[in-house]
Amino acid sequence: MAETGVTPRERYRAQVRAEIMELARQQIATAGASALSLNAIAKQMGISGPALYRYFAGRDELITDLIKDAYRSLADAARAATDQGGGLPGVAYALRAWALADPHRYFLLYGTPVPGYHAPDDVTTIAAEIMAALLDAAPAPPLPQDGAAAADFTDHLERHRSWDGGHPAPAATLHRVLSFWTRLHGVLSLELAGHFAGMGFDPALLFAAEVDGLSRP
Amino acid sequence: MAETGVTPRERYRAQVRAEIMELARQQIATAGASALSLNAIAKQMGISGPALYRYFAGRDELITDLIKDAYRSLADAARAATDQGGGLPGVAYALRAWALADPHRYFLLYGTPVPGYHAPDDVTTIAAEIMAALLDAAPAPPLPQDGAAAADFTDHLERHRSWDGGHPAPAATLHRVLSFWTRLHGVLSLELAGHFAGMGFDPALLFAAEVDGLSRP
Repeated sequence: MAETGVTPRERYRAQVRAEIMELARQQIATAGASALSLNAIAKQMGISGPALYRYFAGRDELITDLIKDAYRSLADAARAATDQGGGLPGVAYALRAWALADPHRYFLLYGTPVPGYHAPDDVTTIAAEIMAALLDAAPAPPLPQDGAAAADFTDHLERHRSWDGGHPAPAATLHRVLSFWTRLHGVLSLELAGHFAGMGFDPALLFAAEVDGLSRP
Repeated sequence: MAETGVTPRERYRAQVRAEIMELARQQIATAGASALSLNAIAKQMGISGPALYRYFAGRDELITDLIKDAYRSLADAARAATDQGGGLPGVAYALRAWALADPHRYFLLYGTPVPGYHAPDDVTTIAAEIMAALLDAAPAPPLPQDGAAAADFTDHLERHRSWDGGHPAPAATLHRVLSFWTRLHGVLSLELAGHFAGMGFDPALLFAAEVDGLSRP
């Protein structure tokens, strides 16, 4: 939207919405996404509950905007890493930095689903952009195959994938990117949740081992 | 504890605690662990808040018991699979069945940390038992090495691990088991959270590919 097309009223509205989202982020950090309370936010801002509902129709709309915001930020980080030519390792380390910078934001996207919340379709569209950035960064197949089951999964993807983004990558590249995503999420989410605390090793090296294994052509 | 040593009073107490835990599980399923309310549970049971606090000292004690219960159940499933001689694949499919049977229980252990909650040390002990079951089931090293970074991480583990359980497994086996844990968690948690919905493939086959890659000696 062009700056000149924004009325003072619209600018004020955007400011209030941004303030509500910031308070929501603080609530999620201290009490969890499922405990998000629009009335508590209204109280903090010194406005009435009904006044706040003029900015967000409800809890789900607020969560959706927080999720979109987080996906947008992650998609930008992934795309910037791809544009810099860092390939999959570049995207992986950008993802790691992004997750460590704000674990609550990471868990909002990839952690325990918020009970009763269902993401609308346009959230899926932004998530598909992240996948597209990964597919662009992935080396050409073949993926180093760890046994027959890996080859079976690539065959399965060839026949059964329904890839909304319409990315032309072959099934073997999609397989690589899916494994990349699940393996990095596996390390990152357990690290962020504190599961490696007390084990004495540096999770950055486990992360690096996974990245290395999946990044070679 | 021998059955004969249990007084009627103790039995009643155990029954009430079990009922509280069951209602807590239902609350977690519908509203999330961070929204857990002891007062709401007391109201459902038709007892006063203070009466309920005679059974659980507070929210954290209740969460701890739910987590211990879940870890115990998972450790039993992992140990049973190991005892049946299924090796790592056996443990993997037992873990998958356990997670799919009750995703909320899975996320309580491995999902977004509950804000403000800190697990006591004896919870870590049960988690270490699951690791021990995995280490017992793991094939002897070497782990199929995906590049130099994987070898680096094994070296790092050799020098820096502090393994509470005192399991005598070599660093390469511990590396295998850590990767096993993070990769399976990566697939399972994203599947349970619905991230593969609409992609058209069967996540069981992606899971199988990861299991196969890590299970061969």
